[in-house]
Amino acid sequence: MPVIETVAIISKPGSPQAAKLVPQLLAWLSARGIGARCDDQTAEYAGGGTPYSREAVVDDVQLMIVLGGDGTLLSAARVISGRDIPIFAVNLGGLGFLTAISVDDLFPELERALRGEHRIGRRRLLRVEIIRGDQQIAAYEALNDAVVSKAAIARMVNLDTYADGHLVCTYKADGLIISTPTGSTAYSLSAGGPIIYPSVGALAITPICPHMLTNRPVIVNDTSVITIVCKDLDDSSMLTIDGQIGEPLRRGDRIICKRSEHCIRLIRPPAQLFFDVLRAKLKWGER
Amino acid sequence: MPVIETVAIISKPGSPQAAKLVPQLLAWLSARGIGARCDDQTAEYAGGGTPYSREAVVDDVQLMIVLGGDGTLLSAARVISGRDIPIFAVNLGGLGFLTAISVDDLFPELERALRGEHRIGRRRLLRVEIIRGDQQIAAYEALNDAVVSKAAIARMVNLDTYADGHLVCTYKADGLIISTPTGSTAYSLSAGGPIIYPSVGALAITPICPHMLTNRPVIVNDTSVITIVCKDLDDSSMLTIDGQIGEPLRRGDRIICKRSEHCIRLIRPPAQLFFDVLRAKLKWGER
Amino acid sequence: MPVIETVAIISKPGSPQAAKLVPQLLAWLSARGIGARCDDQTAEYAGGGTPYSREAVVDDVQLMIVLGGDGTLLSAARVISGRDIPIFAVNLGGLGFLTAISVDDLFPELERALRGEHRIGRRRLLRVEIIRGDQQIAAYEALNDAVVSKAAIARMVNLDTYADGHLVCTYKADGLIISTPTGSTAYSLSAGGPIIYPSVGALAITPICPHMLTNRPVIVNDTSVITIVCKDLDDSSMLTIDGQIGEPLRRGDRIICKRSEHCIRLIRPPAQLFFDVLRAKLKWGER
Amino acid sequence: MPVIETVAIISKPGSPQAAKLVPQLLAWLSARGIGARCDDQTAEYAGGGTPYSREAVVDDVQLMIVLGGDGTLLSAARVISGRDIPIFAVNLGGLGFLTAISVDDLFPELERALRGEHRIGRRRLLRVEIIRGDQQIAAYEALNDAVVSKAAIARMVNLDTYADGHLVCTYKADGLIISTPTGSTAYSLSAGGPIIYPSVGALAITPICPHMLTNRPVIVNDTSVITIVCKDLDDSSMLTIDGQIGEPLRRGDRIICKRSEHCIRLIRPPAQLFFDVLRAKLKWGER
Repeated sequence: MPVIETVAIISKPGSPQAAKLVPQLLAWLSARGIGARCDDQTAEYAGGGTPYSREAVVDDVQLMIVLGGDGTLLSAARVISGRDIPIFAVNLGGLGFLTAISVDDLFPELERALRGEHRIGRRRLLRVEIIRGDQQIAAYEALNDAVVSKAAIARMVNLDTYADGHLVCTYKADGLIISTPTGSTAYSLSAGGPIIYPSVGALAITPICPHMLTNRPVIVNDTSVITIVCKDLDDSSMLTIDGQIGEPLRRGDRIICKRSEHCIRLIRPPAQLFFDVLRAKLKWGER
Repeated sequence: MPVIETVAIISKPGSPQAAKLVPQLLAWLSARGIGARCDDQTAEYAGGGTPYSREAVVDDVQLMIVLGGDGTLLSAARVISGRDIPIFAVNLGGLGFLTAISVDDLFPELERALRGEHRIGRRRLLRVEIIRGDQQIAAYEALNDAVVSKAAIARMVNLDTYADGHLVCTYKADGLIISTPTGSTAYSLSAGGPIIYPSVGALAITPICPHMLTNRPVIVNDTSVITIVCKDLDDSSMLTIDGQIGEPLRRGDRIICKRSEHCIRLIRPPAQLFFDVLRAKLKWGER
Repeated sequence: MPVIETVAIISKPGSPQAAKLVPQLLAWLSARGIGARCDDQTAEYAGGGTPYSREAVVDDVQLMIVLGGDGTLLSAARVISGRDIPIFAVNLGGLGFLTAISVDDLFPELERALRGEHRIGRRRLLRVEIIRGDQQIAAYEALNDAVVSKAAIARMVNLDTYADGHLVCTYKADGLIISTPTGSTAYSLSAGGPIIYPSVGALAITPICPHMLTNRPVIVNDTSVITIVCKDLDDSSMLTIDGQIGEPLRRGDRIICKRSEHCIRLIRPPAQLFFDVLRAKLKWGER
Repeated sequence: MPVIETVAIISKPGSPQAAKLVPQLLAWLSARGIGARCDDQTAEYAGGGTPYSREAVVDDVQLMIVLGGDGTLLSAARVISGRDIPIFAVNLGGLGFLTAISVDDLFPELERALRGEHRIGRRRLLRVEIIRGDQQIAAYEALNDAVVSKAAIARMVNLDTYADGHLVCTYKADGLIISTPTGSTAYSLSAGGPIIYPSVGALAITPICPHMLTNRPVIVNDTSVITIVCKDLDDSSMLTIDGQIGEPLRRGDRIICKRSEHCIRLIRPPAQLFFDVLRAKLKWGER
């Protein structure tokens, strides 16, 4: 790990906790001679200073600090995409699957991270492309999932879904989720998908309210290319990336999902194990 | 059962089968001295004649004939609401839960129905009211269900749900379905709800992709008044009646669901039993 | 409510809490001139006195006090069956759906119950009969459920299931649960059944690990007679009543489940509402 | 692929179809100068000849022919374990996930297989060991799954489950299934598990009727060692291998499941794709 000279800071909007934490964090970094590039929101919490745009905040930094929840981290992950910058994600609020560090542990864990004493959890991204006619009209990198879904009033979408060119199923459903192992504990779980350990080389195809009761989540290799052909859908249907970015779909669009070339690198405290977080979040210790 | 002098006919749009059947049916009725009131679509299939509006088609008739699928019947049920007119529902296409009579059986079964030799299946409707502030802004009668749901991009709605004034749950979910027993084999089933025999005096409260994994469908008495308070939802959220009518919702709206005073009366052939249709539709005879 | 002169006391075996509570309770009753009939276990906790058999403990009493959990209450319910004696059920341990009164509230609530100031929750029992050849070989009254299940090694049972003589389904499964609304929050819930409000006049038919993925829980009227024909099962298969009594089954046995003539009458503290207990038990207040 | 001089034949007991097929198959092989080693059942169908024991049937053969269903193949897989012999599995009866070749295609496909013109599908086995005290008391190789389950009357088992030494969950359930991708379409599917494409390097941990409603199937790397500690179970509880072999368990037993060193090699006709069989078996083409 290189010496950390400059860090990027991305903060959750409208968070009193972040507002209180940012000045302390900037002072702490400054006392150690470490520079900070703040995004708009962080600069506002800092009470001034030049904010960096979301694109520029990651240039020439050796670490990204995220103050927020899993949602803030999801958007930070898209900014960082393809750069080899570890993420130090502090959870403000409830327990997070991704934002493992609590506010109380922020400074001791950051100290440790600066010394290089930390575990890195790598999370593979999902590349998602929309093809209209013979043209790619958009491409994204998702940490959790890509979701095709109908508008509130429409009753269903009709999606031919292929893995490596072989038809998996023609789903008639409210929608379809293509999820990474990281996303398996997010929306896919609500739709009935299994929990996938982060390092399993797999993707989950989880239908939302399928009309065929035998439609079950399907787990394929993450080396598979999944193609969704939007055979029949309303013009109000959407592709959603990580629950944050929406792209309107049209009948005939093809969506291609495949393993991204990129991972994000999450700094985790030594004691943080996936199943511990899982049991705590899902209250598996109790009835 | 009164003597049948005039029947209403409602047909599914764009159905070649209905187009072929309507002239035959009109000739058959005319030969028996029975008058027919055709809705717009039926009149078009008949190649002329005065069409009746959806509202007028049911005046002074003693029987309604529906040619279509469960969808056509759902809209016919709203037209008929509150009038004591039996429905003779002919299924064009796949097997229907509600449209029990096949095209092949149309004329023999209609003959039998005119003689009064038929079983009637009563299906209780659900009354659904939207209250905004202190005003009722809309009211509907549903045969299947009332559904509160989010738009494609929004991640969830947040709904305080009460039965007879007692909090059932604050659902955080993609949406919530209030279903009659009749609707239990429709959308509620896709969302994980149980199958409810038509005459059970109950309503099902079925969440759609709930964030809390312990949220299970809840069955309450159909004498209960269910109130849904839209505590937190996007302005793009909708209330949908029988999957056909959409009403935009606003934060703070209250939706009241209760047993309607009305039933529809379905004419069923003697051999048609609920569980037989169920087994056939869900392929319970096979693995 | 008649004046209470004598109460029956039934206690959970091996409970230090009950051991401590029984002498206090007997003293409290004695001070009010109320007699007590103790079952074996309660007499042991009392450190002497004549124990009554399970059959005799309910003779000439006007109230039954149960000290234990839902399990103790299930067995007490079978003892009381058919007698019009209210049950005052004190929960030792976790929250119970049926044993609503906490140890801290025991004496104030009992005071109130003696004055007749309490709500009664009636819970309808399920009558379960086993027919072998043309002979009824056993009959039970269940509060929660009757379960047909295979032994550990056998792969499945094969059960023709009828409601009022009409075939519902030939279940190929690990087993089948016939549950009352009271039992809907017990084993049926683990097997994927819905939650049924106690006063709904319904029974749930819930298959356990069905081979047909389209097999969903079915809710029928509680006036229906459900017949299960054990078409194909291992001699190690069992009928289990309330998870407590096991009856070995043979191929060809018929099990008849129907609404019992009897209810049990549970004394509930005024604040205890079904949905409050449900939310607390299933942690619906949290994610 | 080596030249095929001798084949082993294993047949399903009590199958009229196998009884008819075996003499034809032996004649066909004999005409091509290929020797056959028949297991007891096959020898009986052949009307004589020396039967080989299950252990000896696979010595010095270059191909194994299985006549039966997936069940026959599961037991054949255990016999073959560790030897590099491809399996030519003919399905008698319904469509099989593993027994891909239909009776009609037997001879043309066998012809092709002898010429080496076939695809091989490799299916990794699961090694399962039972440790009692500090002693390994049994070890098996499973193709589908290892299942810990309670007897019919007992209400649940209580299982501490670890992946690579880290606690996954203390399951309170009817049982627990450790399934290979191959087994994901068998018992695990009935218990609510996802469908896993055969070549995914993963194992599924699927609880059976868990008491905690938040317990969902968990997918881990197939390089993980899964340890189940039987903390609390009845002496009537069992470990079942592929639904065929039962091993009684005692409190305190540890069950270790890990990737076997062995695969079986299934000969598949060129057109047989996993998702095609899946769609046909689960009727995904239909509603």
